[in-house]
Amino acid sequence: MSWEKNVRRVEPYVAGEQPKAEGVIKLNTNECPYPPSPEIKKILEKMDCGKLRLYPDMHAKELVNALADYYHVKQQQVFVGVGSDDVLAMAFMTFFYGERPILFPDITYSFYDVWAEVFRIPYRVCALDGDFRIKKEDYLSPNGGIVIPNPNAPTGVLEDTGFFEEIIASNPESVVIVDEAYVDFGGESTIPLIDRYDNLLVVQTFSKSRAMAGARIGFAIGNEKLIRYLKDVKFSFNSYTMNMPAIEIGRAAVLDDAYFREIVGKIIKTREWTKKELGRLGFSFADSKANFVFACHERVPAKDLFLALKENNIYVRHWDKKRISNYLRITIGTDEQMEKLIAFLEKYLNEN
Amino acid sequence: MSWEKNVRRVEPYVAGEQPKAEGVIKLNTNECPYPPSPEIKKILEKMDCGKLRLYPDMHAKELVNALADYYHVKQQQVFVGVGSDDVLAMAFMTFFYGERPILFPDITYSFYDVWAEVFRIPYRVCALDGDFRIKKEDYLSPNGGIVIPNPNAPTGVLEDTGFFEEIIASNPESVVIVDEAYVDFGGESTIPLIDRYDNLLVVQTFSKSRAMAGARIGFAIGNEKLIRYLKDVKFSFNSYTMNMPAIEIGRAAVLDDAYFREIVGKIIKTREWTKKELGRLGFSFADSKANFVFACHERVPAKDLFLALKENNIYVRHWDKKRISNYLRITIGTDEQMEKLIAFLEKYLNEN
Repeated sequence: MSWEKNVRRVEPYVAGEQPKAEGVIKLNTNECPYPPSPEIKKILEKMDCGKLRLYPDMHAKELVNALADYYHVKQQQVFVGVGSDDVLAMAFMTFFYGERPILFPDITYSFYDVWAEVFRIPYRVCALDGDFRIKKEDYLSPNGGIVIPNPNAPTGVLEDTGFFEEIIASNPESVVIVDEAYVDFGGESTIPLIDRYDNLLVVQTFSKSRAMAGARIGFAIGNEKLIRYLKDVKFSFNSYTMNMPAIEIGRAAVLDDAYFREIVGKIIKTREWTKKELGRLGFSFADSKANFVFACHERVPAKDLFLALKENNIYVRHWDKKRISNYLRITIGTDEQMEKLIAFLEKYLNEN
Repeated sequence: MSWEKNVRRVEPYVAGEQPKAEGVIKLNTNECPYPPSPEIKKILEKMDCGKLRLYPDMHAKELVNALADYYHVKQQQVFVGVGSDDVLAMAFMTFFYGERPILFPDITYSFYDVWAEVFRIPYRVCALDGDFRIKKEDYLSPNGGIVIPNPNAPTGVLEDTGFFEEIIASNPESVVIVDEAYVDFGGESTIPLIDRYDNLLVVQTFSKSRAMAGARIGFAIGNEKLIRYLKDVKFSFNSYTMNMPAIEIGRAAVLDDAYFREIVGKIIKTREWTKKELGRLGFSFADSKANFVFACHERVPAKDLFLALKENNIYVRHWDKKRISNYLRITIGTDEQMEKLIAFLEKYLNEN
């Protein structure tokens, strides 16, 4: 016998590849192709480094207040964390502590079952329909909690606020987490519902639409009581999660709304162009409202395309998983990157 | 019935006050009175902010490699996290998953029982002796894991490596965590023991001796197998915990060893002066090897001194807890700050 008998065994989440080579077109982890707000450079340049000797503000007020103002909610309705993964992990730990299984789609963010496993939360996956749509009725039976991304990932499919309102209203005994990592690219947020439903937690991130995956900032917005429970668990885990640079540059990013709208607008435009071109080349896909397209070719298997692209330094994401193994998730990059992708695919499909 | 029945209820850790007023002498949270290495300013000034759009290196290699070189261990023996609290939380989750109670001192870092509670880990506290020394024999009976700070906090009492080696060697069925948050101020690290004992995890932080509480960097060093288990849980929680600024400035701090030794040397010198002066004023205290002194006055109750100091903008730490309610934990500041503290105490004690 050894100490190993006391170890919590888990199968960790596997993130997308992070190739370090130069010249790679990286369309595999849904990062933003544009740099973050230029205000961030100014903040880091003038940062009072002497203050790093002190603990940061444990409530990250500067950042929380900026988010509260931006989303027209109270400070007490905002929770921040080290990326939305940290926020979601804390939320799973806090709100999914019942005995009934939690529910989420079968095709969705692949971290959900990992969190369920690590926290030993029972769960049941609900199959999307043939068009990759969420079947609302699946979420109306007794459960220990619900988590659904909107738009869903990796499908990109968006549902409207009314769809979620019905699920939330039908589940007063469960917390419903709406994971809005990609909502800024064309969706409508459920944030306005938080005052009406005390069981709704909305989670968003700075990693996609705010071009700051490297800063690790995510947040949740919900009813005050919900946020208080979440903070209790967070403050039982780590008092100070947000470091001083993250608080300061996060705030600057929220304040620079014009820049945010500009880059999001560009990505949406590029996405629509990419869809048109992919359609022309024989791809089919749901109508993505995210910063990626989840596409399947009429003739050539996704795995072959994935490998051919990779060999040519274009990285997209492919999963060897049931129902989706013939799909590629292609992040929307710059116009130039997408033109290169389409040109490569066109040539490859003509030759193969 | 509501969703609240599914909530994990906890009593969160309460960190020391973080007064924001100007002119405060802040000796209450064991921060370093000196700024971090001047290299950090340079790193932030020249940071390539465009790269913030990308996810940071999930293995934080630049930082891990610098630590591995510094401590003469392998990269695979190093784990990094968002302050040592994050590292300890992950370690509790990973290694204390058995049925037997874990053990730690009754007077110690007050986060240990909070982590035990949040993760529902059974625990038993072992009373320090009358001189605030850890009784080794308490840690030789069957248990589910052990965590002990060295030097202990808030007592400041240091034990030698041999003391820990006996505990570690006697507990092959438990992981023993040695929390060395304060070891740089005059202790000897147990890191050299990791190759001999695969059940030893050593945890340290950048928040004290490296003057970087605001950057949120902590680390653990242990046997490869142990670190692998810890990483599995961490990667089941959040793939990217260390943001890009933390990785880069953390590395710079490790490389600037001369500066590190300089500030640690100054703090040790100031601590010894402070002890002498406190002794002269009628305080008694264990021989602290940390960046604080845990002191009790022969006549005036600690609570009175705490309040009088606070009223005069000098913050120290006081706990209304059994066995230690007549003690103040005083962080070692600059010479000037400690002279002001002593001058105030001298005047106060003469008048009261």
